[in-house]
Amino acid sequence: MDMTDLIERLNEIERKKSAYNYARGVVNYDGLTVAPKGSVESRSNCFAMISEELYKLTYGEDVGGLLRELYANRDALGYVERRRVERLQEDYDRNCKVPMNEFIELSVLVNESKHVWHGAKNNNDFATFMPYIEKIVEKKKKIAGFINPDADPYEVYLSDYVKGVDRKFCDDYFEQMKEAIVPLIRRVGEKKQVDSQFLKGSFPIEKQRELAGYLMEVMTLPSDRCILGEVEHPCMLGLDLNDIRITTHYYEDNLLMALFSVIHEAGHGLYELGISPAYRNTILKTPVSSAMHECQSRFFENYIARSEAFCGFLLPKLQEIFPEKFNDVTVREFFLAANKAEPSLIRIQADELTYSMHIMIRYEIEKMLFDGNITAAQIPETWRRLYKEYLGVDVPDDTHGALQDVHWSNGMFGQFPAYSLGSAYAAQMLASMKKSFDVYASVAKGELAPVVSWLGEKVHKDGGALDVPDILLQSCGAPFEPHYYFEYLTEKFSAIYQLD
Amino acid sequence: MDMTDLIERLNEIERKKSAYNYARGVVNYDGLTVAPKGSVESRSNCFAMISEELYKLTYGEDVGGLLRELYANRDALGYVERRRVERLQEDYDRNCKVPMNEFIELSVLVNESKHVWHGAKNNNDFATFMPYIEKIVEKKKKIAGFINPDADPYEVYLSDYVKGVDRKFCDDYFEQMKEAIVPLIRRVGEKKQVDSQFLKGSFPIEKQRELAGYLMEVMTLPSDRCILGEVEHPCMLGLDLNDIRITTHYYEDNLLMALFSVIHEAGHGLYELGISPAYRNTILKTPVSSAMHECQSRFFENYIARSEAFCGFLLPKLQEIFPEKFNDVTVREFFLAANKAEPSLIRIQADELTYSMHIMIRYEIEKMLFDGNITAAQIPETWRRLYKEYLGVDVPDDTHGALQDVHWSNGMFGQFPAYSLGSAYAAQMLASMKKSFDVYASVAKGELAPVVSWLGEKVHKDGGALDVPDILLQSCGAPFEPHYYFEYLTEKFSAIYQLD
Repeated sequence: MDMTDLIERLNEIERKKSAYNYARGVVNYDGLTVAPKGSVESRSNCFAMISEELYKLTYGEDVGGLLRELYANRDALGYVERRRVERLQEDYDRNCKVPMNEFIELSVLVNESKHVWHGAKNNNDFATFMPYIEKIVEKKKKIAGFINPDADPYEVYLSDYVKGVDRKFCDDYFEQMKEAIVPLIRRVGEKKQVDSQFLKGSFPIEKQRELAGYLMEVMTLPSDRCILGEVEHPCMLGLDLNDIRITTHYYEDNLLMALFSVIHEAGHGLYELGISPAYRNTILKTPVSSAMHECQSRFFENYIARSEAFCGFLLPKLQEIFPEKFNDVTVREFFLAANKAEPSLIRIQADELTYSMHIMIRYEIEKMLFDGNITAAQIPETWRRLYKEYLGVDVPDDTHGALQDVHWSNGMFGQFPAYSLGSAYAAQMLASMKKSFDVYASVAKGELAPVVSWLGEKVHKDGGALDVPDILLQSCGAPFEPHYYFEYLTEKFSAIYQLD
Repeated sequence: MDMTDLIERLNEIERKKSAYNYARGVVNYDGLTVAPKGSVESRSNCFAMISEELYKLTYGEDVGGLLRELYANRDALGYVERRRVERLQEDYDRNCKVPMNEFIELSVLVNESKHVWHGAKNNNDFATFMPYIEKIVEKKKKIAGFINPDADPYEVYLSDYVKGVDRKFCDDYFEQMKEAIVPLIRRVGEKKQVDSQFLKGSFPIEKQRELAGYLMEVMTLPSDRCILGEVEHPCMLGLDLNDIRITTHYYEDNLLMALFSVIHEAGHGLYELGISPAYRNTILKTPVSSAMHECQSRFFENYIARSEAFCGFLLPKLQEIFPEKFNDVTVREFFLAANKAEPSLIRIQADELTYSMHIMIRYEIEKMLFDGNITAAQIPETWRRLYKEYLGVDVPDDTHGALQDVHWSNGMFGQFPAYSLGSAYAAQMLASMKKSFDVYASVAKGELAPVVSWLGEKVHKDGGALDVPDILLQSCGAPFEPHYYFEYLTEKFSAIYQLD
């Protein structure tokens, strides 16, 4: 068989995988948005079938044989095909030793678990969710043993989200962060708090929907390729380069939640919308790292949308939609309120300054859980202890504590550190972008196209073809340097809170 | 292998088919409701994959072998297993000679075609849709040739929707209908038209949504198993016994459209909600005939909801939601307006009396198209001619003419007669139900549970286990007798229009 035939076979396999992934994505989106409650079992049955078929198409013996042949001859391939083969081979090597039924069982478990988590969160009922955490951790550890019996199971997953990252790297990173940020949080806490009184009260959902539609436009999201849905826990689902679903959750008493979550998820969406069409229906369609994905979302949410420039651009629109709330508000007041920094309970509502503390707490709990130093039943008390210790807040219940995030119900252990690292990459990218053009001059006019286009060229277009270090080199001309992040936070919040 | 093992294998195959069907149903629903326009290609790719896998799971050689063995020993099976094997074998015998790629090509063609039809309907642009009709008819005729090279291709599909029904049966039925109904329509046309002035003007969509939610409750649809979505062309998707999707389309200037379409689709939904849970994840989960399905939807839409009893029950709710429109309206006035009979352009807006004329026109066009007596390009002119001839109306454009129905874009040729037959079965069922209890006394109180329960017992619970003649025997104690339908229409509209 010549290389053209082999690539044709690979194309067919990847096209079929895309079809399954699309089905899974739509069924997942549907389950999160509109499906009736009674559909859980049908969805489980569907996910189990898809997992099984995707396993065969990814780790089947014939697929392994095909990959081996292509990989051995990869130097004869063009760039796109070579990178596809390398990524597929890497994935194959990692997972081919895991028996198919383990993945299927995990998929079924996770589907049930998500459902149980929803109810548990609503009812402040950690006990019903607890056995699922236990079962999922156990299953993930078992799977990690198949992947690499010599590795630390938690590190197996850590590196899934940011390749090459291990405990030592994360421990060092969080140590540096603690040194830089904890004193800053303390000093901010001693200052007079900014006034955000005008954000109190009711913001009708219908009006918030109108604002969200406007933000989708400002964010340059094409309406024929991207929709906005409503869910419990906002997320972005990139079903295809031409089918991106961002989601939000409206709270009548909290305007900023949906406002910034739409921009955050739009940042994720722009990443996937910007991937080279040549990567469609291949593994390269999927960005390689959660941290880089979160870098894009947090870049837009924080570095763009929480800037004084953007606040100035957005205020007239807020005055138009919510006149009684914003008519007497100045740009400075809105900017300050949008950046109010104070220790709080909910990660996704946290300000930029305290955000990474929420991440660190989850990172520590995940390590303890995987190491067997705490049981699932001890999560709530550990959570309370660490929130008190790092943020000084008292957790009133598990709904506002250990049940707030969807991740564990989804089996996504090891992902949280990526969120903080992504923020740090974003700071470094902002510094680099500013050398190219006057970022905030564009942002002040609500013109985000130059920002999207810079990121498109340096980050988005390469999809899963480049690893994080290469993307950082391409965008920042240097490897990862966390100090940009700490300096950015120090500078921004020193100014806002007038620290000396 | 003993029978238990064979049945276990069959269970596994059918469970897998359910998973694919669920995925297909969700992707379809998503495409009809929220998916971004750019997703057409992904959806096509997904449907193609699902069609291929379902083909293998239904007509694969190993499936054929398994069925043969089970079928040969079917007398040793319990009722449910036996009926499953018989239905699967019947389907296998019908379709196993069709090459897989024909089904896949049809599936891809139909997915594109639905998309093109949407645009064509909105833009009154028959020309762009026309080639799809040609290609679909050609493909369906080719497939019919594989199914039975000696049969009339159109009859192959006619009998798909109502088993055993052929052209002769339909021709006879429509001939009787013409004799009974055409003079009635003429006589009604000579009478003073009922006053429906209060239905003019604007009915805000938000208020209509509120009414629809109320109607779902009245129709006894369980909210954990059934949702209501918004689409271009209302339909019901029974994804699973516990996941029923009914849909509607709100028109600001036409309250009755969504009102009766919700009830119509709810009738379809109740059918699938009432199927025996023992049939879940098997072929018996799917009712065997479109005509019986339409019988259930039209039973509720017309025989229940357009009755004076139901109008009396609903009026206070309409007065509550739309006080300025309904406060001065009497039950009699609302009943008359809801039953205003006059020749019109749009099938799904047609009154009970003229409805079957719309069906007859489509039936005649489909026959001509399959027989090669007209080309797809000649559909609009034929449509205009027949609407003038049978209904006396002038068709102003194709949006209100040959482009109004989704069916042809979906490849559903041969289904329309089922709609009229379903109405006729419903008349016969009503007569039988009235012998059991005072139907309209319940309906007048808005209590539909006795109606749903009667139909559940006599029709719904048996799902795909019984054929139409058996369901009619079970529910009416007699074979099909169309005179019930003609008598019902004659009696109802003679009273409304005070014919002598």
